[in-house]
Amino acid sequence: MAAPSDGIAYINGEYGPLAEASVPLLDPGFTRGDAVYDTVSVWGGNFFRLDDHIDRFFRSCATARLAPPVTPDSLKGILAECVRLSTLDAAYVQMISTRGKFQNPLRRDPRECKNTIMAFAMPYIWIVQPERQLQGIDLAIATGNRRTPPEAVDPRMKNFNWLDFQRGLMEGLDRGADTSVLLTPDGRLSEGPGFNLFVVKGGALRTPRGNVLEGMTRRTTLELATALGMQAAEADLSVDDLRSADEAFLSSTAGGVMPVATVDGVALGHGAGAGPISLQLRSEYWARREAGWLGTPVASLLN
Amino acid sequence: MAAPSDGIAYINGEYGPLAEASVPLLDPGFTRGDAVYDTVSVWGGNFFRLDDHIDRFFRSCATARLAPPVTPDSLKGILAECVRLSTLDAAYVQMISTRGKFQNPLRRDPRECKNTIMAFAMPYIWIVQPERQLQGIDLAIATGNRRTPPEAVDPRMKNFNWLDFQRGLMEGLDRGADTSVLLTPDGRLSEGPGFNLFVVKGGALRTPRGNVLEGMTRRTTLELATALGMQAAEADLSVDDLRSADEAFLSSTAGGVMPVATVDGVALGHGAGAGPISLQLRSEYWARREAGWLGTPVASLLN
Repeated sequence: MAAPSDGIAYINGEYGPLAEASVPLLDPGFTRGDAVYDTVSVWGGNFFRLDDHIDRFFRSCATARLAPPVTPDSLKGILAECVRLSTLDAAYVQMISTRGKFQNPLRRDPRECKNTIMAFAMPYIWIVQPERQLQGIDLAIATGNRRTPPEAVDPRMKNFNWLDFQRGLMEGLDRGADTSVLLTPDGRLSEGPGFNLFVVKGGALRTPRGNVLEGMTRRTTLELATALGMQAAEADLSVDDLRSADEAFLSSTAGGVMPVATVDGVALGHGAGAGPISLQLRSEYWARREAGWLGTPVASLLN
Repeated sequence: MAAPSDGIAYINGEYGPLAEASVPLLDPGFTRGDAVYDTVSVWGGNFFRLDDHIDRFFRSCATARLAPPVTPDSLKGILAECVRLSTLDAAYVQMISTRGKFQNPLRRDPRECKNTIMAFAMPYIWIVQPERQLQGIDLAIATGNRRTPPEAVDPRMKNFNWLDFQRGLMEGLDRGADTSVLLTPDGRLSEGPGFNLFVVKGGALRTPRGNVLEGMTRRTTLELATALGMQAAEADLSVDDLRSADEAFLSSTAGGVMPVATVDGVALGHGAGAGPISLQLRSEYWARREAGWLGTPVASLLN
């Protein structure tokens, strides 16, 4: 029997155990991967950058031509209720809109589908566990495949078409790494399964632009670094920019700022383990999160 | 209340109404689009090229590193039982393998997931209705986005990462076309949502190679045309090869051979409506299907 703290889902207007939540097989959200989502974290009872996540979710919906039956405010209430029912103080909270079943099976016109809204709260996810982060992550550069380019699918539209990421992730795990970063078809640095990448050189931060999700923790890190007096910018980056970096780290809603120790088994320039600037940004990020930085109390959204 | 002829699904070892079938929200088959499938048709009580579809399905599974808990023979039995229970004589039959839930939520390693098998039978689907096929289809060339390239996701691995197709399809429908064909990132002809494309010039057939699913109806059409004494081959094809063609047609398990009348609103070279070679191939295809060509009787697979 699932406990509330294992996760609570909202589907079809009802709240229930996440472990029992399901999507109709005939929803093109499954059979066509025709869905968008966003993930917001809760830490110490506060949503982080909730309005920014909600804004991005509705932009993803607009790009995919999805119109979920919810307003920003009612969606916030649903997310908060999922968290409240879960009793979780630190949570991974997701909102999803799928295409929804075809209204006319003979026409099969995606434009006529009744789009859906789903949401859930579950325990906070670390895409790399905190103890590994402190040691520094072993990162692989995927060689077997590339990131889907923006000409095919806009990566700013946060979506579930992850076969490229999954393949790269399994390659990295096979090679003994914690995860993998993918390259663009023309060989530039892109992003990995659930994270953006940063490189640090001479005290300055750079992160790939163009072929990536504009991650919220990526944006937060750019702002934080600037506030701390560091140079930080988006740029076109080569594999060599990573291999020759002093440091590198990953950013994700599911794990925060995560220092990289090695790339394809080779230690980065600063030496063994997690780099000092990466560790500093990680500490600053979590200290601010603990203090409710950019936060919206879950309780403030409940009736 | 759903009738059996509305569709029957097999999930978790049980058969039930397709309309009630669902996928767990936490299966990465949904939240990562991490699944493969294949679709085989039944016409007049016969599966078409069943062994070829089963072979391709297991090849897709191998490419995705999925190991569905089923043998080719037991899968055939499941598909046949879905069709039997549905009472359908003409059916669209699909087999699906998803990654399955994470066994260890902390590790989230796709390699450790228990992969699933699902299947269903539903009434035969025409991606373009027969009466439209006889008039000739209005085809659009998608301008808003391109097909995901093989460097990112192998298109021979039949999968649900369809956001590129869905976008192209909606663009075509918006423009008053029946459907759309997508181009590769470097501008060659590729495929469309659920179909391969053929062009006919001087009596010879050509179909795009490399950036496409190796469709079973595509293969059947190449074989059929050759048997009828036509030239037929795979080739790298440009947009101009389509615009300047005498005729064009689509091929799909969901509709067979489907003549194209116009491309971006302009009639193809042979003149108005469906072209004669396309119509001939369509007739030959369905006459053979009616006669049980390359067929496996559903009844022969039932205990």
